[in-house]
Amino acid sequence: MTTMLIVGGTGDTGSWFARYFRDRGFVVLVWGPSGKVQVAESMGVAWASDLDRAVEESDVVVISVPIERTVEVIRDLAPRMKPGSLLMDVTSLKSEPLRAMDAFAPAGVEVLGTHPMFGPTMPRLEGQTIILTPAKGRGQAWLVRLREIFEADGASIEVLSAEEHDEIMAVVQALTHFAYIGIGSALRALDFDVARSRRFMSPVYEIMLDFVGRILDQSPELYASIQQNPRATRVRQVFIGECMRLAERAESGDLAGFQDIMRLAAQHYGQTHQALLRSDRIINARVRERDGNPGDGNPGDRSTGDGNPGS
Amino acid sequence: MTTMLIVGGTGDTGSWFARYFRDRGFVVLVWGPSGKVQVAESMGVAWASDLDRAVEESDVVVISVPIERTVEVIRDLAPRMKPGSLLMDVTSLKSEPLRAMDAFAPAGVEVLGTHPMFGPTMPRLEGQTIILTPAKGRGQAWLVRLREIFEADGASIEVLSAEEHDEIMAVVQALTHFAYIGIGSALRALDFDVARSRRFMSPVYEIMLDFVGRILDQSPELYASIQQNPRATRVRQVFIGECMRLAERAESGDLAGFQDIMRLAAQHYGQTHQALLRSDRIINARVRERDGNPGDGNPGDRSTGDGNPGS
Repeated sequence: MTTMLIVGGTGDTGSWFARYFRDRGFVVLVWGPSGKVQVAESMGVAWASDLDRAVEESDVVVISVPIERTVEVIRDLAPRMKPGSLLMDVTSLKSEPLRAMDAFAPAGVEVLGTHPMFGPTMPRLEGQTIILTPAKGRGQAWLVRLREIFEADGASIEVLSAEEHDEIMAVVQALTHFAYIGIGSALRALDFDVARSRRFMSPVYEIMLDFVGRILDQSPELYASIQQNPRATRVRQVFIGECMRLAERAESGDLAGFQDIMRLAAQHYGQTHQALLRSDRIINARVRERDGNPGDGNPGDRSTGDGNPGS
Repeated sequence: MTTMLIVGGTGDTGSWFARYFRDRGFVVLVWGPSGKVQVAESMGVAWASDLDRAVEESDVVVISVPIERTVEVIRDLAPRMKPGSLLMDVTSLKSEPLRAMDAFAPAGVEVLGTHPMFGPTMPRLEGQTIILTPAKGRGQAWLVRLREIFEADGASIEVLSAEEHDEIMAVVQALTHFAYIGIGSALRALDFDVARSRRFMSPVYEIMLDFVGRILDQSPELYASIQQNPRATRVRQVFIGECMRLAERAESGDLAGFQDIMRLAAQHYGQTHQALLRSDRIINARVRERDGNPGDGNPGDRSTGDGNPGS
């Protein structure tokens, strides 16, 4: 019988993991700062009324609290953990939490950074990615066991150093969000009529607009904290710099210069045509859905490419 | 019997319209500067070997040439048109072509700007948008007739002034492309390993990356010319300005300031939650497709939302 304490286990992410491990035979306890005992009850898992004791007795302690509180919670709880147990977090940044777990977990406690690359609305792990960032010399037994559990459910497991993780996420998460939030803020600054613009949409604009709205619909705290990735500073500056270069070319009428930037970017990107075909399928699925006919089993029947000025 | 000459009718967009109007009973002639007679033959439409005479005798002349050549082609051909005929273009920008058509078409010739909001890979008009920008006092008869034809095929017709069109497209097309090209160029400037990053994808990143690749895969000439929209200058500057404001907040650790920008943008955007739900469906369709099971008629069976740090 393996006991797992999830600190922040009544939040969206924490309760996802509570249910996940409960269903895989773990004895799960949850605790959260706002004392939502009823959330634990509704999941059929125990509420850790004595947090310190739960930390001392658990085989696994999972830290699932907002990024900016992660280090402080680790510092408070990790020293109480028992030898042979595992301390893991599920934060989107890894260098800082990992350093804290490494520093505050007693010798004999394994340490594992974890970043699930999906949201808590996902019912199944199949086809999803989880990145694991182990601490050097802090054991492998739990990593192997968790990996087996996740892989049995069809997840793709990637093992990275915490630093490499943060470097990649500075683009995968921070830059992606940053560009979309920048567009959203520009729409406001321009006082652009978003609802009316839907009458004049191209498929590419339509989907871009939905992803801007998707991000603006969610927790500003979360998105702001993801920008705190130390590697994101350079990424943002490079992005803004490239936008300025492109704008300069466009404004001076240097169309050849603008095209050169695009060609070099295409060359670096690599398989752009596969991306075109994949995005065609996204657009086709969307057109089918808009026609009130989702998933009609015929994805190729209506192409809405934008190889011409119409896009 | 209505005769239609399509100048540039052997290009992607021009030949789309050649086939479209051919199938609707028009006698279509095409001409192109590279003399691709075999393209006309393959479509079963006539090649306008005597361009001037074709212009003089046609009931409709469609200008479908690259944006930067549109005005010059209009200046050369429009003066020869006969009274009662229609001069129209299918360019992504409208103010300048419309001014040229208005200036060079003789009195008695109707003038209509046209912008199909889709690409030439689309087999059907159903569910697609076409924007019409008529010239003031240059007749309504052809506008009514074309509108009826397009609407009979399920297209959505929007009538705008050329200026209003360009103002909206400065966001819908120019800003959308600009942000994606900026991301693509940043990936190059960062020497970011795009192929490897697919191992660590979130659904939001994955789809963003495909749209970057989609645009980089297509004609740099086209995308550069769309940036020549005179209204795009301000839009690009406002976008870059908002990115700089966001970066400044992130870099100074002003998380509250970053969140405030997001909240104002969300407020201006309006129905963000509907956008989240629509983008959920896009993501779900993508996950199903990746599993080799496209269009299984059950779009809601796997949600991959990113309401947590995992996105």
